[in-house]
Amino acid sequence: MPEIAFSQPSSDKHELEEGAAFTPRFDANGLITAVVTDAGDGALLMVAHMNAEALSKTLETGIAHYWSRSRGTLWKKGETSGNVQYVESVSTDCDQDAVHLTVRVEGDGATCHTGRRSCFYRNVSLDRDRPVLVAKS
Amino acid sequence: MPEIAFSQPSSDKHELEEGAAFTPRFDANGLITAVVTDAGDGALLMVAHMNAEALSKTLETGIAHYWSRSRGTLWKKGETSGNVQYVESVSTDCDQDAVHLTVRVEGDGATCHTGRRSCFYRNVSLDRDRPVLVAKS
Repeated sequence: MPEIAFSQPSSDKHELEEGAAFTPRFDANGLITAVVTDAGDGALLMVAHMNAEALSKTLETGIAHYWSRSRGTLWKKGETSGNVQYVESVSTDCDQDAVHLTVRVEGDGATCHTGRRSCFYRNVSLDRDRPVLVAKS
Repeated sequence: MPEIAFSQPSSDKHELEEGAAFTPRFDANGLITAVVTDAGDGALLMVAHMNAEALSKTLETGIAHYWSRSRGTLWKKGETSGNVQYVESVSTDCDQDAVHLTVRVEGDGATCHTGRRSCFYRNVSLDRDRPVLVAKS
Protein backbone atom coordinates (compact mmCIF):
# COMPACT_ATOMS: atom_id res chain seq x y z
CA MET A 1 0.00 0.00 0.00
CA PRO A 2 1.37 3.44 -0.81
CA GLU A 3 2.00 5.58 2.24
CA ILE A 4 -0.58 8.30 2.71
CA ALA A 5 0.89 11.73 2.09
CA PHE A 6 -0.21 14.65 4.24
CA SER A 7 -0.37 18.08 2.66
CA GLN A 8 1.13 21.11 4.36
CA PRO A 9 -1.31 22.78 6.75
CA SER A 10 -2.93 25.92 5.45
CA SER A 11 -1.91 29.20 7.03
CA ASP A 12 -5.59 30.16 6.78
CA LYS A 13 -7.22 29.47 10.14
CA HIS A 14 -10.67 29.13 8.58
CA GLU A 15 -9.38 26.50 6.18
CA LEU A 16 -7.86 24.51 9.07
CA GLU A 17 -11.04 24.72 11.12
CA GLU A 18 -13.72 24.33 8.48
CA GLY A 19 -12.01 22.87 5.41
CA ALA A 20 -12.31 19.29 4.20
CA ALA A 21 -8.59 18.48 4.01
CA PHE A 22 -6.86 16.67 6.86
CA THR A 23 -3.53 18.47 7.14
CA PRO A 24 -2.12 17.47 10.54
CA ARG A 25 0.04 20.08 12.23
CA PHE A 26 3.10 18.17 13.42
CA ASP A 27 5.20 19.99 16.01
CA ALA A 28 8.87 21.00 15.74
CA ASN A 29 9.80 17.36 16.43
CA GLY A 30 7.50 16.11 13.69
CA LEU A 31 4.97 14.74 16.18
CA ILE A 32 1.26 15.08 16.83
CA THR A 33 -0.50 14.21 20.10
CA ALA A 34 -2.82 11.19 20.03
CA VAL A 35 -5.51 10.72 22.66
CA VAL A 36 -6.71 7.14 22.82
CA THR A 37 -10.05 6.10 24.29
CA ASP A 38 -11.91 2.80 24.43
CA ALA A 39 -14.51 2.51 21.67
CA GLY A 40 -16.79 0.63 24.05
CA ASP A 41 -17.07 2.69 27.21
CA GLY A 42 -15.08 5.79 26.27
CA ALA A 43 -12.43 5.36 28.98
CA LEU A 44 -9.24 7.33 28.43
CA LEU A 45 -6.55 4.70 27.87
CA MET A 46 -3.39 6.58 26.95
CA VAL A 47 -1.83 9.66 25.42
CA ALA A 48 0.89 9.04 22.86
CA HIS A 49 2.61 10.66 19.90
CA MET A 50 2.64 9.96 16.19
CA ASN A 51 4.93 11.06 13.41
CA ALA A 52 3.70 11.16 9.82
CA GLU A 53 4.62 7.53 9.24
CA ALA A 54 2.79 6.30 12.35
CA LEU A 55 -0.30 8.32 11.49
CA SER A 56 -0.20 7.14 7.89
CA LYS A 57 0.14 3.48 8.91
CA THR A 58 -2.68 3.85 11.42
CA LEU A 59 -5.03 5.24 8.77
CA GLU A 60 -3.96 2.64 6.18
CA THR A 61 -4.13 -0.45 8.36
CA GLY A 62 -6.72 0.41 11.01
CA ILE A 63 -4.21 -0.68 13.65
CA ALA A 64 -2.73 1.96 15.94
CA HIS A 65 0.92 2.85 15.37
CA TYR A 66 2.81 5.45 17.39
CA TRP A 67 6.24 7.00 17.57
CA SER A 68 8.13 5.88 20.63
CA ARG A 69 10.00 8.93 21.87
CA SER A 70 11.97 6.87 24.37
CA ARG A 71 13.11 4.30 21.81
CA GLY A 72 13.14 6.60 18.78
CA THR A 73 11.27 4.05 16.67
CA LEU A 74 7.94 3.40 15.02
CA TRP A 75 5.85 1.43 17.47
CA LYS A 76 3.02 -0.91 16.52
CA LYS A 77 1.23 -0.96 19.84
CA GLY A 78 0.75 -4.52 21.15
CA GLU A 79 3.24 -6.12 18.79
CA THR A 80 4.97 -7.84 21.69
CA SER A 81 2.22 -7.79 24.35
CA GLY A 82 -0.63 -8.86 22.06
CA ASN A 83 -2.65 -5.84 23.14
CA VAL A 84 -3.09 -4.58 19.61
CA GLN A 85 -5.41 -1.60 19.18
CA TYR A 86 -8.00 -1.85 16.39
CA VAL A 87 -9.04 1.65 15.43
CA GLU A 88 -12.75 2.38 15.14
CA SER A 89 -12.47 6.10 14.48
CA VAL A 90 -9.93 8.88 14.11
CA SER A 91 -10.90 12.49 14.60
CA THR A 92 -8.97 15.73 14.84
CA ASP A 93 -9.44 19.02 16.63
CA CYS A 94 -10.12 22.53 15.41
CA ASP A 95 -6.50 23.45 14.67
CA GLN A 96 -5.51 19.91 13.64
CA ASP A 97 -2.65 19.54 16.11
CA ALA A 98 -4.11 16.53 17.93
CA VAL A 99 -5.92 13.35 16.97
CA HIS A 100 -8.39 11.22 18.89
CA LEU A 101 -8.47 7.48 18.32
CA THR A 102 -11.25 5.25 19.57
CA VAL A 103 -9.97 1.69 19.74
CA ARG A 104 -10.77 -1.88 20.71
CA VAL A 105 -7.88 -3.47 22.56
CA GLU A 106 -7.03 -7.10 21.88
CA GLY A 107 -5.30 -9.56 24.20
CA ASP A 108 -5.79 -9.11 27.92
CA GLY A 109 -6.97 -5.53 27.38
CA ALA A 110 -4.06 -3.82 29.11
CA THR A 111 -2.97 -0.61 27.44
CA CYS A 112 -0.43 0.54 30.03
CA HIS A 113 2.97 -1.14 30.09
CA THR A 114 2.47 -1.55 33.86
CA GLY A 115 -0.25 -4.08 33.05
CA ARG A 116 -3.14 -1.81 33.88
CA ARG A 117 -6.03 -1.17 31.52
CA SER A 118 -5.35 2.58 31.38
CA CYS A 119 -2.20 4.64 31.88
CA PHE A 120 -4.32 7.06 33.94
CA TYR A 121 -4.58 5.00 37.11
CA ARG A 122 -3.90 7.71 39.69
CA ASN A 123 -5.75 10.81 40.75
CA VAL A 124 -3.92 13.96 41.74
CA SER A 125 -5.04 15.49 45.01
CA LEU A 126 -3.71 18.01 47.50
CA ASP A 127 -2.41 16.98 50.91
CA ARG A 128 -2.25 20.43 52.47
CA ASP A 129 -0.37 22.16 49.63
CA ARG A 130 1.50 19.07 48.49
CA PRO A 131 0.28 17.42 45.26
CA VAL A 132 0.01 13.66 45.80
CA LEU A 133 -1.16 10.66 43.82
CA VAL A 134 -3.91 8.34 44.95
CA ALA A 135 -4.84 5.11 43.16
CA LYS A 136 -8.23 5.34 41.47
CA SER A 137 -10.83 3.20 43.11
CA MET B 1 -3.13 31.10 48.45
CA PRO B 2 0.49 30.06 48.05
CA GLU B 3 1.27 28.59 44.67
CA ILE B 4 1.70 24.83 44.72
CA ALA B 5 5.29 23.84 44.10
CA PHE B 6 6.05 20.75 42.04
CA SER B 7 9.12 18.70 42.91
CA GLN B 8 11.56 17.58 40.26
CA PRO B 9 10.57 14.26 38.70
CA SER B 10 12.52 11.26 39.91
CA SER B 11 14.93 9.63 37.50
CA ASP B 12 13.72 6.32 38.95
CA LYS B 13 11.03 4.93 36.63
CA HIS B 14 9.45 2.87 39.41
CA GLU B 15 9.11 5.95 41.59
CA LEU B 16 7.38 7.84 38.75
CA GLU B 17 5.02 4.97 38.05
CA GLU B 18 4.23 3.71 41.53
CA GLY B 19 5.25 6.46 43.95
CA ALA B 20 2.87 8.76 45.80
CA ALA B 21 4.38 12.08 44.72
CA PHE B 22 2.92 14.02 41.80
CA THR B 23 5.98 15.29 39.97
CA PRO B 24 4.74 16.37 36.52
CA ARG B 25 7.22 16.00 33.69
CA PHE B 26 7.04 19.30 31.83
CA ASP B 27 8.59 19.22 28.35
CA ALA B 28 11.44 21.35 27.01
CA ASN B 29 8.99 24.25 26.69
CA GLY B 30 7.82 23.84 30.29
CA LEU B 31 4.47 22.39 29.22
CA ILE B 32 2.44 19.28 29.97
CA THR B 33 -0.41 17.95 27.82
CA ALA B 34 -3.90 18.16 29.31
CA VAL B 35 -6.74 15.98 28.02
CA VAL B 36 -10.13 17.36 28.99
CA THR B 37 -13.29 15.27 29.10
CA ASP B 38 -16.84 15.98 30.26
CA ALA B 39 -17.43 14.73 33.79
CA GLY B 40 -20.97 13.81 32.85
CA ASP B 41 -20.79 11.70 29.70
CA GLY B 42 -17.03 11.36 29.24
CA ALA B 43 -16.92 13.11 25.86
CA LEU B 44 -13.49 14.34 24.80
CA LEU B 45 -13.77 18.14 24.76
CA MET B 46 -10.26 19.44 24.07
CA VAL B 47 -6.53 18.89 24.31
CA ALA B 48 -4.54 21.79 25.73
CA HIS B 49 -1.26 22.56 27.48
CA MET B 50 -0.38 23.72 30.96
CA ASN B 51 2.74 25.22 32.40
CA ALA B 52 3.49 24.88 36.12
CA GLU B 53 1.52 28.02 36.96
CA ALA B 54 -1.57 26.87 35.05
CA LEU B 55 -1.43 23.42 36.64
CA SER B 56 -0.92 24.91 40.08
CA LYS B 57 -3.83 27.33 39.69
CA THR B 58 -6.06 24.54 38.40
CA LEU B 59 -5.33 22.38 41.45
CA GLU B 60 -5.68 25.30 43.88
CA THR B 61 -8.89 26.77 42.52
CA GLY B 62 -10.69 23.81 40.93
CA ILE B 63 -11.11 25.90 37.78
CA ALA B 64 -9.19 24.89 34.67
CA HIS B 65 -6.31 27.14 33.65
CA TYR B 66 -4.10 26.52 30.63
CA TRP B 67 -1.13 28.04 28.87
CA SER B 68 -2.06 29.63 25.59
CA ARG B 69 0.77 28.83 23.20
CA SER B 70 -0.63 31.18 20.56
CA ARG B 71 -0.95 34.15 22.92
CA GLY B 72 1.92 33.23 25.26
CA THR B 73 -0.22 33.86 28.34
CA LEU B 74 -1.90 32.08 31.21
CA TRP B 75 -5.45 31.35 30.13
CA LYS B 76 -8.38 30.92 32.49
CA LYS B 77 -10.67 29.02 30.16
CA GLY B 78 -14.06 30.70 29.80
CA GLU B 79 -13.00 34.01 31.29
CA THR B 80 -14.42 35.90 28.33
CA SER B 81 -16.90 33.34 26.94
CA GLY B 82 -18.39 32.31 30.28
CA ASN B 83 -17.68 28.67 29.51
CA VAL B 84 -15.63 28.17 32.66
CA GLN B 85 -14.54 24.59 33.39
CA TYR B 86 -15.10 23.34 36.93
CA VAL B 87 -12.70 20.48 37.56
CA GLU B 88 -14.10 17.31 39.09
CA SER B 89 -10.92 15.23 38.92
CA VAL B 90 -7.32 15.43 37.80
CA SER B 91 -5.34 12.29 37.06
CA THR B 92 -1.95 11.60 35.53
CA ASP B 93 -0.45 8.81 33.48
CA CYS B 94 2.27 6.27 34.22
CA ASP B 95 5.22 8.51 33.35
CA GLN B 96 3.52 11.70 34.54
CA ASP B 97 3.87 13.63 31.29
CA ALA B 98 0.14 14.16 30.73
CA VAL B 99 -2.85 15.01 32.87
CA HIS B 100 -6.51 14.19 32.45
CA LEU B 101 -9.14 16.63 33.68
CA THR B 102 -12.79 15.79 34.00
CA VAL B 103 -14.81 18.99 33.99
CA ARG B 104 -18.26 20.51 34.06
CA VAL B 105 -18.58 23.35 31.59
CA GLU B 106 -20.56 26.46 32.55
CA GLY B 107 -22.30 28.91 30.24
CA ASP B 108 -23.63 27.58 26.97
CA GLY B 109 -21.43 24.48 27.23
CA ALA B 110 -19.19 25.24 24.26
CA THR B 111 -15.57 24.29 24.77
CA CYS B 112 -14.30 24.97 21.27
CA HIS B 113 -13.70 28.57 20.23
CA THR B 114 -15.70 27.77 17.06
CA GLY B 115 -18.77 27.53 19.28
CA ARG B 116 -18.99 23.75 19.21
CA ARG B 117 -19.22 21.63 22.32
CA SER B 118 -15.99 19.75 21.53
CA CYS B 119 -12.92 20.67 19.50
CA PHE B 120 -13.06 17.17 17.99
CA TYR B 121 -15.94 17.73 15.59
CA ARG B 122 -14.51 16.05 12.49
CA ASN B 123 -13.61 12.48 11.67
CA VAL B 124 -10.65 11.63 9.50
CA SER B 125 -11.36 9.22 6.68
CA LEU B 126 -9.69 8.16 3.46
CA ASP B 127 -11.02 9.16 0.07
CA ARG B 128 -8.97 6.77 -2.06
CA ASP B 129 -5.58 7.59 -0.49
CA ARG B 130 -6.42 11.16 0.40
CA PRO B 131 -7.10 11.90 4.09
CA VAL B 132 -10.23 14.01 4.39
CA LEU B 133 -12.37 15.42 7.18
CA VAL B 134 -16.03 14.67 7.61
CA ALA B 135 -18.27 16.38 10.17
CA LYS B 136 -19.33 14.02 12.95
CA SER B 137 -22.98 13.18 12.83
